[in-house]
This record gives sequence, C-alpha cells and structure tokens, in this order.
Amino acid sequence: MSRIAYVNGRYVAHQTARVHVEDRGYQFADGVYEVWSVRGGVLQDHASHMDRLQRSLRELGIPFVHSVGSLNILLYEVLRRNQIVEGIVYLQITRGVTSRDHAWPANLLPSLIITAKTINPIIAEAQAKIGVSIITTPDLRWKRCDIKSISLLPNVLAKQLAISVGCTEAWLVDEEGFVTEGTSTNAWIVTHDDVLVTRDLSHQILSGVTRLALLELATQHQLKTAQRKFTVEEACQAKEAFISAATTWVLPVVAIDGTKIGTGKPGPLGTLLRQAYLAASISVR
Amino acid sequence: MSRIAYVNGRYVAHQTARVHVEDRGYQFADGVYEVWSVRGGVLQDHASHMDRLQRSLRELGIPFVHSVGSLNILLYEVLRRNQIVEGIVYLQITRGVTSRDHAWPANLLPSLIITAKTINPIIAEAQAKIGVSIITTPDLRWKRCDIKSISLLPNVLAKQLAISVGCTEAWLVDEEGFVTEGTSTNAWIVTHDDVLVTRDLSHQILSGVTRLALLELATQHQLKTAQRKFTVEEACQAKEAFISAATTWVLPVVAIDGTKIGTGKPGPLGTLLRQAYLAASISVR
Repeated sequence: MSRIAYVNGRYVAHQTARVHVEDRGYQFADGVYEVWSVRGGVLQDHASHMDRLQRSLRELGIPFVHSVGSLNILLYEVLRRNQIVEGIVYLQITRGVTSRDHAWPANLLPSLIITAKTINPIIAEAQAKIGVSIITTPDLRWKRCDIKSISLLPNVLAKQLAISVGCTEAWLVDEEGFVTEGTSTNAWIVTHDDVLVTRDLSHQILSGVTRLALLELATQHQLKTAQRKFTVEEACQAKEAFISAATTWVLPVVAIDGTKIGTGKPGPLGTLLRQAYLAASISVR
Repeated sequence: MSRIAYVNGRYVAHQTARVHVEDRGYQFADGVYEVWSVRGGVLQDHASHMDRLQRSLRELGIPFVHSVGSLNILLYEVLRRNQIVEGIVYLQITRGVTSRDHAWPANLLPSLIITAKTINPIIAEAQAKIGVSIITTPDLRWKRCDIKSISLLPNVLAKQLAISVGCTEAWLVDEEGFVTEGTSTNAWIVTHDDVLVTRDLSHQILSGVTRLALLELATQHQLKTAQRKFTVEEACQAKEAFISAATTWVLPVVAIDGTKIGTGKPGPLGTLLRQAYLAASISVR
C-alpha cells in the first residue's frame, strides 16, 4: 500500500504531495502545525491539540477556515486511507500562497496538509525501558515559543547536535541558566522529596498537551507537582528526569550532558506516569 | 509571457512551481535565501550575495552542492527566460526532502528554487523622493539573525504590523532599547555632526550587502561613519534616518512612530548615498 497525503483539498500519493514554492510556509515559516499520537486507530488528546491549533492560528492572525468537524473528518480519513492503527498524524496550516513579500494581502486562503505514518509501539516501549541520554544547549529560539509554529530552525539544529553526539534530545537553556524545554518535548525533573517539576507556562515554552495531561494524572495519583523553572545543575542532581511529548508520551532521561541522573536507570515516578498516561488514553477507546 | 521558475533542475511555469510537502524548508524553516537586485539586466553586488549565501549554508551545515559558476548560469537563465531587465531574482536553498523528523539523515540532497520578477524602477524612485514612515516594535527573532535563513515568521509579523498602521517598515528593538535592524532592511541614522551610524555586526543582525557597499561609498565620499548601537530615542532626534536593502537600495525615513525625523523630508546624506549607490552599480554594466 502506498502512503496517501491530504494536500489542499485532495488526497494524493505521498511522493507527489507538493505545495507551491510561494506558499508562505516555504519562504517565511508562516504557519503552524500539530502532531497527534494514534493508538488503536484513535487520535489521542484530540480536543486539546485542536484547541491549541486554533490558538496558534489566532496568535498569528491566520484565519481558521476549516471547522473542527471538517478537520476531524479529514484527519480520520487520512488515517483510514493509510491504515494507521498505531502511529502519528501531522497537520500543517500555513497562511497561504501569494507573491513573495513580507506583508501579506487580505483574504488569503490558508494551505492545509495532513500526513500520517505508522510507528511500531514496540520500539517506543524498548526506548522507555532503557531511557534516553540528552544534552543541554543554549536556547536560540524566538520569543513566542508558545505558538506551535513551523519556525523550527533552532530546534532542528539543537536536535541534530544531540543526535551527532549519540544522544536523543537536547534541553534548551535560557540566558539565566534555566531549562526551557526540549527541541520537541517538555522537560521534567523529580526532586528528592518526590515533587514533579516542569517549567511554568510563558511565551518561552509550548504548552504541551501531554505535559498538561501528565500534570492532571499526577494529581489523580496524589503526586506533588510544581510548575517552575529549574537549572541544568538542579536537573543533574535530581532524583529522576524525563521528557514528554505527544509522539513519545513519557521517556525517562538517564543522563544529562554525560552526568548520570539518579541511579542511571528509568526512575519510578516517570515510569508510573508513562503507564498511567497510556492506561488513561487506552480507556478513551 | 508567462513567468518561469527554476525548481530542482527544471524550468517550469511559475504557477506549477512546487516542492514536496516534506521539503524541510516547508516543515522546519530549514533553509537559506538571497535576493539580488537586477539593473540593466545585471545582478547587483553579485559576488557579495554569493559569498553570504555560502556562509549561511555553512553555518547551518547545509552542503553547497552547486558551484558558484553553475548558480550564476541558473540565475541569468531565469532572468533571460523571464525577460527581466529591472527587477529582482530570488534564490532559496533548503536542506532537502526527507521523512519528517527534527534530525536529518546524512547525504540529503538540498533543494534549490529560483524565481524572478520585474519591478518598475519609477515606483522606487517616487518612494525615495517622499521617504517612508516606520514603526518600532520589539525584536522577537532568534539569536542567529546573521544567518539569512527562511525562519522569518517574526519578521513578517512585524512587517505586517507596520503595513497595518500605514507604515512601510518596522525597526526591531532589542531588550535594552537599541534598534537591531528592519524586518528586511538595515537601519541607519545621521547624527547632528553628520556621522552615518548603523549597528555593528553581531549575531543579532544580518550583514547587509547594501549596508557594506554604503559604508564603502561613504568613505569614498569623505563621510564619517560609525558602526554602533543606537536607541529609538536617538533615532527620533537624529538629523536623518534611512533604511538599506538589496531590493530598495536606500530609502529615506521621514517619521518613526509618528515622530518627524529632521525636517520630515528625505535628508541630504541619505539621498546622496542613494544616488552614489545607483551610480556606482550602473558603472558595473
């Protein structure tokens, strides 16, 4: 079966899925996106991603011309046509196509693409069992990281740096030495008195859908949480650390910049949260 | 005559010029660009733009797989096919097409597109005679603005803000109150003792090709120059102000945030530099 993508009103073979060179997404990073995890054929945390998509569009002044209902139909149709049971679906909306100029004309029609792929959950499970090693690197991003835009150049450079030294993710560090978040994940530590700490929301980080779900799950499990900044030093001395994202849920961090975290193995609270998250999302089905 | 674009090895009708949705330029702003002014059918400041293009690629770790010579041939062929005598040519190179992931695989083939369009020089001349009004707005960009990347979302948002209040450009202001540059131009002021001031080079601004040419021309004309920061307040009290860019050369600024600059009309030094720049570039032909 060949992959199918949705591009501006049409379902096309993935390899022929193209957009115009003057789509503002291609020349100005003028667009937003969302990624949903698909489990048992169901979009996870569906409504939260849809809410965030609309917020991102609103912040950039891109009109939301597709209703939530019609996007839902498109997302599930892309899943159906690609026979995705376990995997991810990617949706991107840009401001549209127009002659290249920094400013844009009124009444531009936004572009919409949707792609999907299968991901083998066994790999994710194996990764969660051994944990991941990460690096830290200066946060070079712009000042509106709360918007889930496709302006991801600093993110991909930091991620590649991590990969090139054999690590899985990079935590970005602000000018004062505090961790903001990962390149595509939120950052968490567990203090020695068992408080789950993740950075408070601001323009400097994305409001992760999984981050929010984990905060709620933690409360349900009588775990203490704190939303505040933490430094790289505090992270290195933490009892546990982990990262969260829609695509990987929760992944334990076992080393930061070569420093072993806790026992150097996935910690109990991160593991508990991962299992709780997966159990809760299965119950949606 | 229909417009022609160059896209990854082929000359195609502009309206059918497309790239794959998984071109990293479309999903990660993972690419760079250059814009040349074309006068009398000749690319202006040709070598300087080509040097900067290669520097931008190097900084992002994108291989320069096209030789300068072959790019020159492509640029002039696009001009020829579009019959451009006065106008601009736009060249963009991205890291290439690959399955979406923040990190990229080895040996990716970069994408290359070139487009061109005619610009009526009479409009630019009329604009230069009356000058432009600008606004100032916080600089929200990332920390490597010295790289001419397509990661331009904060630029286009600031530019649109300027347009929406009837102005032509926005000067971006850093956290300490100093002007960095415009959204697509470098920023200049003239002090009351006739010193031409433009910000010194750093990671915070682009090294403008026209900026550099103007600094050299100023010296040739026995004008004093200083490369240093200046605040919005200093700019509002300056004798003159202007902006420079490859596409507009020099444009006098007659108002900043509604404050009249100097006499409120294009100043003599900015006008002199504009004429000197145009005269020098004509002599290249």
